[in-house]
Amino acid sequence: MNELKNDRFLRALLGQPVDMTPVWIMRQAGRYLPEYKATRKKAGDFLTLCKTPELACEVTMQPLDRFDLDAAILFSDILTIPDAMGLGLYFSEGEGPKFERPLRSAADVEAIGIPDPEQELKYVTDAVRVIRKELSGRVPLIGFSGSPWTLATYMVEGCGTKEFAYVKAMMFDQPAVLHQLLDKLADSVTLYLNAQIQAGAQAVMIFDTWGGVLGPRNYLDFSLQYMEKIVSNLTRENEGRQVPVILFTKNGGQWLEAIADTGCDAIGLDWTLEIGDARKRVGEKVALQGNMDPAVLYAAEPRIRAEVATILESYGPGSGMVFNLGHGIHQKINPDHVTMLVNAVHELSKPYHKR
Amino acid sequence: MNELKNDRFLRALLGQPVDMTPVWIMRQAGRYLPEYKATRKKAGDFLTLCKTPELACEVTMQPLDRFDLDAAILFSDILTIPDAMGLGLYFSEGEGPKFERPLRSAADVEAIGIPDPEQELKYVTDAVRVIRKELSGRVPLIGFSGSPWTLATYMVEGCGTKEFAYVKAMMFDQPAVLHQLLDKLADSVTLYLNAQIQAGAQAVMIFDTWGGVLGPRNYLDFSLQYMEKIVSNLTRENEGRQVPVILFTKNGGQWLEAIADTGCDAIGLDWTLEIGDARKRVGEKVALQGNMDPAVLYAAEPRIRAEVATILESYGPGSGMVFNLGHGIHQKINPDHVTMLVNAVHELSKPYHKR
Repeated sequence: MNELKNDRFLRALLGQPVDMTPVWIMRQAGRYLPEYKATRKKAGDFLTLCKTPELACEVTMQPLDRFDLDAAILFSDILTIPDAMGLGLYFSEGEGPKFERPLRSAADVEAIGIPDPEQELKYVTDAVRVIRKELSGRVPLIGFSGSPWTLATYMVEGCGTKEFAYVKAMMFDQPAVLHQLLDKLADSVTLYLNAQIQAGAQAVMIFDTWGGVLGPRNYLDFSLQYMEKIVSNLTRENEGRQVPVILFTKNGGQWLEAIADTGCDAIGLDWTLEIGDARKRVGEKVALQGNMDPAVLYAAEPRIRAEVATILESYGPGSGMVFNLGHGIHQKINPDHVTMLVNAVHELSKPYHKR
Repeated sequence: MNELKNDRFLRALLGQPVDMTPVWIMRQAGRYLPEYKATRKKAGDFLTLCKTPELACEVTMQPLDRFDLDAAILFSDILTIPDAMGLGLYFSEGEGPKFERPLRSAADVEAIGIPDPEQELKYVTDAVRVIRKELSGRVPLIGFSGSPWTLATYMVEGCGTKEFAYVKAMMFDQPAVLHQLLDKLADSVTLYLNAQIQAGAQAVMIFDTWGGVLGPRNYLDFSLQYMEKIVSNLTRENEGRQVPVILFTKNGGQWLEAIADTGCDAIGLDWTLEIGDARKRVGEKVALQGNMDPAVLYAAEPRIRAEVATILESYGPGSGMVFNLGHGIHQKINPDHVTMLVNAVHELSKPYHKR
């Protein structure tokens, strides 16, 4: 494989010295970029874009050509595994993802199998291989998956939800059925991420978008337990380098200590806590990634720079931090504001990394 | 006024001894009750139901006739103040509340006035008076309002939102405009709640449904500061009794200490933290209200009782706790499960209140 020209992101995740704080943006390949919209139009629909490795590669590269980002992230959807399990993923315009066959019973859960990533999900590992070749060592490539709990919410509800009625009814009334589903998902995610690593992903991130809708005991039991199982079974070294693992639970700020205990290398933070406070709580054990409110990017440059400065100051000197938003970038953000953000992070972080 | 036959709720909010833990349910007058749906049908639409004191009284009383609840809560909408400010509140089927004229500029904010609760909102204080008469001292009546920040989100967005793009753009780019709006709202809420108290509300609660989407500094600056201003200007005694004030920020578990410092009497908790941990953090200063996941009510009776027992045990012995859900009851809950919940709270809490 090509030698890595910029390894700032990987080094920061492992707490190794860097010259400045690395930065990437969740959903950096997305609808706020006109070139993304053009490629998506060419693809015809979102799932074709995900399932065509050359097109997935094209949109993965677009933000790197515009901004001085320190990492690329595989373009894909978090619901590829349930789709490969045969639930029939589809997107209805303006309504988000849906499944034709949601899981509602013990028999439904019993019936699903564990996808072979090099068969049913080969379009994903193919995309990883194509992107790595195209990157040619510019920056590292991040692979990812949804967490078992987050995948289960969509699989049981069949669509997005505010109340999580079906999956929580299952949790409170048929916990053994839900645990069986989460077990299958943990095995599937492990195979899936290891296949991405084998294909060339240099770090992996697990998105637990909906862990924060659980109470603390249920979070540990139905979400974190399964992420921990995945972490302990991942390939942690490849191509002679460590492959760092990032866990991100949206609205998980109350449970950082428990997340840090899973053995992951880094925790993704949303913007509801100060990153400096998070560092005090877990900073010796793991790196931190975050945590600017995505809505700051609606503001003009002085405000963007001020917010970047505040977050860098809150974290303080030394390595172990990756700058990011606390959630995906919004669709209506002006791409020029991302330029301002990325440049501000690099420029303003240098003093924190002097030897 | 009539003598109060059951003052368990008011006593618990003030930390005074009680025989058992009082319980009420957020959104207890709501669509899970067939009799509510019948009254709403009779009213024609939701706003007419809110604006007709006799009908608001009818639905306020319905859950009390079914369940052994320890408090009634005024039936109303949180968006009555912006409606009275002339924004044109309406409800489109299945899409939640919307405003015909959202606020988007400094001039828009400049133009709005502070409603006189005994004029533009007289239907609310009339409802309080009718309900108090109908209650005839059975249980205390809770008045309520949305928090300034939560009202502002709807007023600036013009509808419900997941990203809060417009209101956060205003926060980051035109903070002075947003502060002017929040100032007007704090004054309006103060007048509104004091009018409810004057009309007979025996406790008041401020619902900060969207405070949890803010970062910690912004929460203090744009939400909590204004709730504190309201708390310090409320009538705290009426009819010879203290009028307790409850603050509830959904997803506010990380900021309990700051909320307790506002001078409120109680904090409403969602289910993302253990009530026992919350008590350790702030229990000497304020009472706590919560905090069962509303989705527990989908489960069968043994599970409901087990969850009630766990929460009561987590809080531990002594007064200062009001049992509630951590958010409003879901529409599809079987009302019989509410009976199970209410009875379980009363029965299982008695040992915690022995002298």
